[in-house]
This record gives sequence, C-alpha cells and structure tokens, in this order.
Amino acid sequence: MIKKTLKSWHQLLNDQDPKALYSLLHENAVFHSPVVHTPQKGRDLTHMYLMSAFHVLAGEEFTYLREVVDGQNAVLEFQTVVDGIVINGVDMITCDEQGLITDFKVMVRPLKAINLLHQKMMEMLEQYQSAS
Amino acid sequence: MIKKTLKSWHQLLNDQDPKALYSLLHENAVFHSPVVHTPQKGRDLTHMYLMSAFHVLAGEEFTYLREVVDGQNAVLEFQTVVDGIVINGVDMITCDEQGLITDFKVMVRPLKAINLLHQKMMEMLEQYQSAS
Repeated sequence: MIKKTLKSWHQLLNDQDPKALYSLLHENAVFHSPVVHTPQKGRDLTHMYLMSAFHVLAGEEFTYLREVVDGQNAVLEFQTVVDGIVINGVDMITCDEQGLITDFKVMVRPLKAINLLHQKMMEMLEQYQSAS
Repeated sequence: MIKKTLKSWHQLLNDQDPKALYSLLHENAVFHSPVVHTPQKGRDLTHMYLMSAFHVLAGEEFTYLREVVDGQNAVLEFQTVVDGIVINGVDMITCDEQGLITDFKVMVRPLKAINLLHQKMMEMLEQYQSAS
C-alpha cells in the first residue's frame, strides 16, 4: 500500500499540488520537524509544515537519492542546495492500511544545513501565520 | 544478506566489541557524519567515528525505535537521552553482497541534539587523536 502512497507523493511534489498533499494526510497525522523536538499534531499543522518545507527545499537541485521501503514505512533520502549549502536529509513516512500518511518525520545533515533550514523555516512559518 | 549484517550489528553493540565492528566494515567503507558534510573515507576512519559515536550515544536510555530494511539498505531509527537532551536519529547502512558495511550515514534531530552531538564528538575525537 505504501508504494501507492509514494507514487502519489512524487506526483504531488512534481505538480506542487497542496490539495493533493492534504488529501494524502490522515486527519491525525503527526509531523516531526528536524529542528524542534515537539511533534506537530493533526492534518492542518502537518500540511502547513510540509508546505513550508516544500517552499524552502524545492527547486531544480532537489533530488531523491535513495528509497528504502519496508511494510508501512518508507525512508526517502534527498539532497538539495539552498544558498550554496548542500542539504542532505530523509523523509521518514508511515502510512495506514488505506495508504494515508499518519506520521512524517524529517532529519537533515550536516549542521550547516540544519541551521539554514531553521532560519528559513522560521521566516516561512511567520509568513504563513501573518497571512492566516 | 543485510539481515545477517544487522544481526551482527546489534550483537556487537550489545557486546561493545570494537574488533567485531572492525571486521564488519568493508575496507573502503565511508562514514557520513550528522555534523560535517565531507565523507570520512576508509575502514579506519569509519571505525574511529563509529566508536566515538558509541561512546557519546550509548547508555541505558539508548533504544532502536524503527527498522526499515530494503535490499542492501537498512535505516535504523534510534533514540537516546544525553545530558537531559533527547537525541532522535537514524543509522543508514548499506552493505555489499558479502554483508560488509560499505556506507554508514548518521542523521539526528532536533537542533539541540545535533549541537550537543557536535560538541561531544569533538571532545571524543580529540581524545582519540591525542591517544594515537
């Protein structure tokens, strides 16, 4: 089932489709940020964080390097370059039996990349919050 | 084949056995630190970094949360607590057809954890280098 979820995931990334992302998330989905320990709970918060991450990380340089898939879990390793800094990271995705994403965790390396991501995500989330 | 490698991995962690670790590494093994971008090449450097990581992360609180295994790749998610800070991370392991580890990448979250790990790993590597 997660294979179908991953196909939808790659498609919505390609189309930059926020609605398709929303419909792929379980209503109780949880997002775990690379920067902050506290989990972000629920579909709306998960969606907001993932959209922010898209805006920061997406671009011509973004590419997936490795896909490790096992049962209801997938780990997608990505790499991109933002402001001249290489960001290497993983999307760790768990889905339920219907293929909806229940848990989404992101980790990045190296230290320079996480510091840059911290700064960029803060700016992005402030924009989201002031617009809502 | 990687299932056998993982069994050896868990065994040597349990036994805290540096020699068993060394014999599980391919001579051209590469280590990718969570802190620094540049890969550390070769069995000796990989062994030194992994031993340092053991000393920093190991302890009663260390536990593996999730194991995602696919072909020659495995992603082991761990969690531990060091100096009161929760460290959540992944060991991303690739092995060859003989079951030797050819590539070992570590990522951790959140930001507090990577900063702590940076400081602790520096101290540990200085000790190794001054002892050698």
